Amino acid sequence: MPNPTAAMIVIGDEILSGRTRDSNAHHLAGRLAIQGIDLREVRFIGDDRATIIATVQELSAQRDHVFTSGGIGPTHDDITADCVAEAMGASIDVRDDARAVLQAYYDARGTEMNGARLRMARIPGEATLIDNPVSAAPGFSLGNVHVMAGVPRIFEAMLDGLLRRVEGGRQVTSRSFLLDRGEGDIADILRQLAGDHPDVSIGSYPAWTGAGYQVAVVVRSAEAGDLDAVATKLREAFPEARE
Amino acid sequence: MPNPTAAMIVIGDEILSGRTRDSNAHHLAGRLAIQGIDLREVRFIGDDRATIIATVQELSAQRDHVFTSGGIGPTHDDITADCVAEAMGASIDVRDDARAVLQAYYDARGTEMNGARLRMARIPGEATLIDNPVSAAPGFSLGNVHVMAGVPRIFEAMLDGLLRRVEGGRQVTSRSFLLDRGEGDIADILRQLAGDHPDVSIGSYPAWTGAGYQVAVVVRSAEAGDLDAVATKLREAFPEARE
Repeated sequence: MPNPTAAMIVIGDEILSGRTRDSNAHHLAGRLAIQGIDLREVRFIGDDRATIIATVQELSAQRDHVFTSGGIGPTHDDITADCVAEAMGASIDVRDDARAVLQAYYDARGTEMNGARLRMARIPGEATLIDNPVSAAPGFSLGNVHVMAGVPRIFEAMLDGLLRRVEGGRQVTSRSFLLDRGEGDIADILRQLAGDHPDVSIGSYPAWTGAGYQVAVVVRSAEAGDLDAVATKLREAFPEARE
Repeated sequence: MPNPTAAMIVIGDEILSGRTRDSNAHHLAGRLAIQGIDLREVRFIGDDRATIIATVQELSAQRDHVFTSGGIGPTHDDITADCVAEAMGASIDVRDDARAVLQAYYDARGTEMNGARLRMARIPGEATLIDNPVSAAPGFSLGNVHVMAGVPRIFEAMLDGLLRRVEGGRQVTSRSFLLDRGEGDIADILRQLAGDHPDVSIGSYPAWTGAGYQVAVVVRSAEAGDLDAVATKLREAFPEARE
């Protein structure tokens, strides 16, 4: 059975304006790779209602899972929860369980629960809450869409909990070979290997060290036997490679 | 006249697998903001022919500019140039001017020009070359699609040259106000300001410092007068804000 597939939507004008550098996509990519879920696409989009709705609808129809990051706070530009509800044809309102979580958090800190904060308890009726151990305001899973916060520490904590209940696939393992050469020297051999082993993804990533060119050849597969076969051929072709 | 719009496509399995963290999207976002070009969307996609072609066609029809990063080296997984040509209905082959640039670079280094390296001279006939002052192999602009390398040092050098010939718009300026408060305290005021000033983008970005919550309120607009009006109201509402 093929591995589950996923897409991510990073939501926020601050990412597209260059103010903030997203780190959640890279974090999610690494976590999904370990879990055997194939991340096929990431999109950064702005805080625009029509764009969020259309993107959620398109990607949730194409992939087994959609992960979103950003736009679930108390302010006017936090529109993700309502947009995801609309995209999925669900109703959304303040939900008692989410309100109770927030109320307990604010009570413990002597913070007033006002209307803005209460917006963070807006959760679609049929959604499952995603726990937020950092600042209480929960994310949620609605169908195959998992809605999480943009602040990296909160995103990562939410994802920890969420991934415990998302079924993974076969983990793709990888081996990496470092060579002190230019990519152009090894391209023919890699092309032949890639043709002979369609189940193995063979990537080559050049870098310039200051002293000369290096290239990392990374082979990836969920099939351990195929991966080993390619690794053996690479070792024969490039005995000097550092693994 | 509204500012030109742009989208970016970051191409490479290594990004989606979590091996490599992209930095080109953030770099491009900052550069386009300065130039007055509105970055509306970024997509990370894999080294897949059909996906690259479909994504280029979709985004080049929607935006004034599309910037791509990755997949223009000498190896079998470098398929961006051919895919962009196909997406735009252009033919592609080794081009004499690109070959001459590469040949001079390799001659100066005593490196052999082989078939793999010659692939980097494959450029659509009607494209304009994008200079690569780092490692010679050029990028190109075909229609409104600008094809650049993935290695950040090369991407950034190519972009420097490219942006000199891309017409910008009015630069969006921003002012930022830092407050030692939670977002929930200031949400009502921000919502009202956002309603009163539709030409000004008002974002609020919470952070946890260890000692307490902070929030940065960032106001952005290409209309200096509107921006100043909002900034004045923010100063009145939050005299303690640090700009």
